[in-house]
Amino acid sequence: MTDTNSSKIGKLVPDIVVSRLPLYLRTLTRLQEEGKEVTSSQELATRLGFSSAQIRKDLSHFGEFGKQGTGYHIAFLKDQLKTILNLDMMWDVALIGVGDLGHALANYGRFTRKGFRIAALFDSDPKKIGTIVNGVTVQAVDGMIDTIRQKGIRIAILAVPVNVAQKTAEKLVEAGVRAILNYAPITLTVPAEVKVQNIDPIAHLQKMTYYCKR
Amino acid sequence: MTDTNSSKIGKLVPDIVVSRLPLYLRTLTRLQEEGKEVTSSQELATRLGFSSAQIRKDLSHFGEFGKQGTGYHIAFLKDQLKTILNLDMMWDVALIGVGDLGHALANYGRFTRKGFRIAALFDSDPKKIGTIVNGVTVQAVDGMIDTIRQKGIRIAILAVPVNVAQKTAEKLVEAGVRAILNYAPITLTVPAEVKVQNIDPIAHLQKMTYYCKR
Repeated sequence: MTDTNSSKIGKLVPDIVVSRLPLYLRTLTRLQEEGKEVTSSQELATRLGFSSAQIRKDLSHFGEFGKQGTGYHIAFLKDQLKTILNLDMMWDVALIGVGDLGHALANYGRFTRKGFRIAALFDSDPKKIGTIVNGVTVQAVDGMIDTIRQKGIRIAILAVPVNVAQKTAEKLVEAGVRAILNYAPITLTVPAEVKVQNIDPIAHLQKMTYYCKR
Repeated sequence: MTDTNSSKIGKLVPDIVVSRLPLYLRTLTRLQEEGKEVTSSQELATRLGFSSAQIRKDLSHFGEFGKQGTGYHIAFLKDQLKTILNLDMMWDVALIGVGDLGHALANYGRFTRKGFRIAALFDSDPKKIGTIVNGVTVQAVDGMIDTIRQKGIRIAILAVPVNVAQKTAEKLVEAGVRAILNYAPITLTVPAEVKVQNIDPIAHLQKMTYYCKR
């Protein structure tokens, strides 16, 4: 599952550490945009709300990136994190479901800037099939498996209604997709080698209302 | 911070347990829609990809909801979870930033069905101010603090550009907001009593590419 990466360092990195790497990358980019060239685990800690010890420990899984007393060179650490996260290349992404949300996602400029090119759009609605969104033609979901196989796409964004989400995910897996960003409010059942990340704004809101006084 | 809830049981519930409650609620609703009236920790485990022991342990923080051998009565457990999460009421939500994403969120029907009413929309673009989205008039962000105070809104969805996100969050806190669902790709700095949940599709994708073979 993590052959590529664990081989870089010879041991398995905890999933929770991997989760934080994109946040480090995002913060480093922000610091760079502010004109900074060097940062410290303390500055990253303040920006991210983690402890500086945690940041040093997280990064130590992958090597030595900073020097005691002088901190981290931002451009260098960014490059290293991008390599670790396999972001030193452009990933083609299939987006399934071009409703309100799918449409907004297809137009989200940040995907391309961050290494994810929406390379195929699919929908089952005849009125949507053939339309062009952000330069990509919406195709019928019937041809999805063939197209994804042909293009060698490994990553999909699932923005379909909840009642067809599991079935669609199974087709994606059959087509060779190994990473699904799932916007449907359902826990997908997929083989262990397929990664799923879920985005459900309701679940996030409901977690917060637990802490809200009435 | 957790007065309301910790008083129900007399001790603090770990944050990670609270995170899972909305997923239990979502799965119970799904089972109910499939016509089921009773479920088990084993069935919930299969649906959610957790262990049944974990589910029993999570729920035990809040009381005894099932009987050995007969399982959980779905409608009852749902009601209990909704009470625990403060979802036995409708929450007013302010949505700030009516761009592509904000527009899709304002039109997302599931918010209302799950207890969150988009009660106010704000944007800084003069072309958007005064327009009506899903029955709600977009107001100038200048009047945001007053309106949120007046309406007693405690929850906000932040869908503004990254460069104004922190400043806007500070205004929201000043206005009395205590829970922010943040779509801007930045870690917000807010007082400890304010809860923030982040949704950044890029961070989710980047976590998965770590595991993707080139």
